[in-house]
Amino acid sequence: MGVHRLWEDLLPIGRDRSTGGYVRYSWSTVDLECRAWFTGAAGERGLDVETDRNGNLWAWWGDPAAGDAVVTGSHLDSVPHGGAYDGPLGVVSGFLAVDELRARGVTPAGPVAIVAFTEEEGARFGVACLGSRLLTGALDPDRARALSDVDGVSLASAMGRAGADPAALGPDPDRLGRIGHFVELHVEQGRALDAPVGVASAIWPHGRWRLDFTGEGNHAGTTRMADRRDPMLTFAYTVLAANKEARLGGAHATMGRVAVTPNATNAVPSAVSGWLDARAADEATLEALVAAIANRARERAARDGTTVEVAAESVSPETTFHSGLRDRLAARLGGVPVLPTGAGHDAGVLAGHVPTAMLFVRNPTGVSHAPAEYATDEDCAAGVAALADVLEELACR
Amino acid sequence: MGVHRLWEDLLPIGRDRSTGGYVRYSWSTVDLECRAWFTGAAGERGLDVETDRNGNLWAWWGDPAAGDAVVTGSHLDSVPHGGAYDGPLGVVSGFLAVDELRARGVTPAGPVAIVAFTEEEGARFGVACLGSRLLTGALDPDRARALSDVDGVSLASAMGRAGADPAALGPDPDRLGRIGHFVELHVEQGRALDAPVGVASAIWPHGRWRLDFTGEGNHAGTTRMADRRDPMLTFAYTVLAANKEARLGGAHATMGRVAVTPNATNAVPSAVSGWLDARAADEATLEALVAAIANRARERAARDGTTVEVAAESVSPETTFHSGLRDRLAARLGGVPVLPTGAGHDAGVLAGHVPTAMLFVRNPTGVSHAPAEYATDEDCAAGVAALADVLEELACR
Repeated sequence: MGVHRLWEDLLPIGRDRSTGGYVRYSWSTVDLECRAWFTGAAGERGLDVETDRNGNLWAWWGDPAAGDAVVTGSHLDSVPHGGAYDGPLGVVSGFLAVDELRARGVTPAGPVAIVAFTEEEGARFGVACLGSRLLTGALDPDRARALSDVDGVSLASAMGRAGADPAALGPDPDRLGRIGHFVELHVEQGRALDAPVGVASAIWPHGRWRLDFTGEGNHAGTTRMADRRDPMLTFAYTVLAANKEARLGGAHATMGRVAVTPNATNAVPSAVSGWLDARAADEATLEALVAAIANRARERAARDGTTVEVAAESVSPETTFHSGLRDRLAARLGGVPVLPTGAGHDAGVLAGHVPTAMLFVRNPTGVSHAPAEYATDEDCAAGVAALADVLEELACR
Repeated sequence: MGVHRLWEDLLPIGRDRSTGGYVRYSWSTVDLECRAWFTGAAGERGLDVETDRNGNLWAWWGDPAAGDAVVTGSHLDSVPHGGAYDGPLGVVSGFLAVDELRARGVTPAGPVAIVAFTEEEGARFGVACLGSRLLTGALDPDRARALSDVDGVSLASAMGRAGADPAALGPDPDRLGRIGHFVELHVEQGRALDAPVGVASAIWPHGRWRLDFTGEGNHAGTTRMADRRDPMLTFAYTVLAANKEARLGGAHATMGRVAVTPNATNAVPSAVSGWLDARAADEATLEALVAAIANRARERAARDGTTVEVAAESVSPETTFHSGLRDRLAARLGGVPVLPTGAGHDAGVLAGHVPTAMLFVRNPTGVSHAPAEYATDEDCAAGVAALADVLEELACR
């Protein structure tokens, strides 16, 4: 089916040899290599490539100006030391689905496009779905330009260094208006799909909260245990409480990021910040989960002589995908599973503007955002076939 | 008593305006300013200054070659954002005690010296008591030269940039042999001293252990709670267990430093390293404490599906100060309190080679290694008077 060369050309780009994971941050040298790969793949197929004002890449089969386009795609950027499939599988499968449609002799009624959105992961500039949010107007371009990475480089500066024009950033309603349907294929990211391919029903409501624990910095050797006000204790208790509350509520809670001041072996910390990632099947459950975690943190802080402040950094409501499209695609694919996901996607951003659907490819180990992320070649091929079926269904109306 | 100008000249050097704490790392520009301050203070008093092969500064009243010197002093470097007193109080008090002896008309029988040891805190190159350990031969000079700071700058390179010769580093037995007695005055670092001045009995055995928790990196949004192997949970449990075990054992345990991979909000970590600082009144208690913490970490790891490896980074046995000297000084000071400390000091390194004692000045809040570290002017003056008494006792034998 030709998957191998296209996929194998992409695999070495941005791969860290020590971890086996990918470090593909937007507008980096590695990102420019990924973009060149995209342009090459489109060129081999005679597709016209354009980069929109927000840095998203589009490869067109047919005339973009005709409107009512059927668009598929995903993203090429990664989390730090992420897997090979999250994002790229959707872009590769888009190109291969076009090959498949041509092999079938299909002539679409309107234009078909493959898109690669910029910085879906938010790994460099901190805002997930950066390119699709700018496209739809969900993110203010002035705010976007001022975002900076850990080295203090702003998005505007990073784009300039990469030869892109940050002044052009902003909503693109004409482009958005020419999209008739958007379908994103993505590797499933847990172990929720027990078939080669499934269709998404919804994205769980989810958010990020920062918990700032403040105590009193002191000498680790000489400060009596009874005299301490150690915020690391309150943080540690909250990590365990978040895990327990999520299990009790059938939800997801993770505290995978922490910053300690001064972070010295021989010092009781003065402050610890911990980030909470929480997700649930509905918004009431999510709110109750976060409230329960915050309450338990405050109770423990009172015992530790510390304080805790809880601030929401970003909260996304539930995204329900277009039900008619969802049912049509599931039927077209012979009644494959329909399932929700806890992960955000560009499709979730587009869903508020155009009829949008997602296809998932089975993840046998459930690992994602890590080097061991994996899907079998057979399931990937089934994904390409399903995507071709769906594009044919939508483009030959 | 003249404390003010000498002290006030030193106070602005290396002070961070945002935290109010001190950042005085060895061989930095700030360190060179501290060294210039030392040279100036000695010069004003007609004391001869020399820098030994390990970068320690010595100010001599009398002929160093005469031997049987009475030496006092401490260090000028700080932990990150540390307090004003830890180290500098002992150096300032040394100069002021010389002023006091001269005001009393005392003529020492042999030389008296004030010393400022290099990098007592280990804050830049990671080895505490760097200067005194090199002097006594407790640290191999090749290993010392290769130590590097967080920016990858080696000690050898940092010394070279500061105009010092790293090739000269190494044991200095002749210098050590000329010291008859060493007395370090230091701010007490907990709330163990309820009088202006006290005498040290011993330094608790103490050490640093690194605990490496390994799990499986994964997606925070999509990985079912039951499918996770999250090392942050094992770390958090261990933080709380260390606190509880230390309280039960009447010891000190702190986990104030942590490193998370990848430390991303939306990722279950693949690995967490936590550092344990543990101290106890005797070695059996310390060993039992660390064993108990390690056992509880391993038990929890088995439940979390993670692993934990425990490695000792440095362990120091108990230091008992010279009992005859201790009793003589306590008697000379009118029966002041005699107490142990949980903190390491250059005096602990010298104690294995020459009769050594320590004086403590009361710490009313118990805060140390933090900007709020404090001693009253009255207690500091009492410390200078006590140090002058002690130097007179030892130098006029």
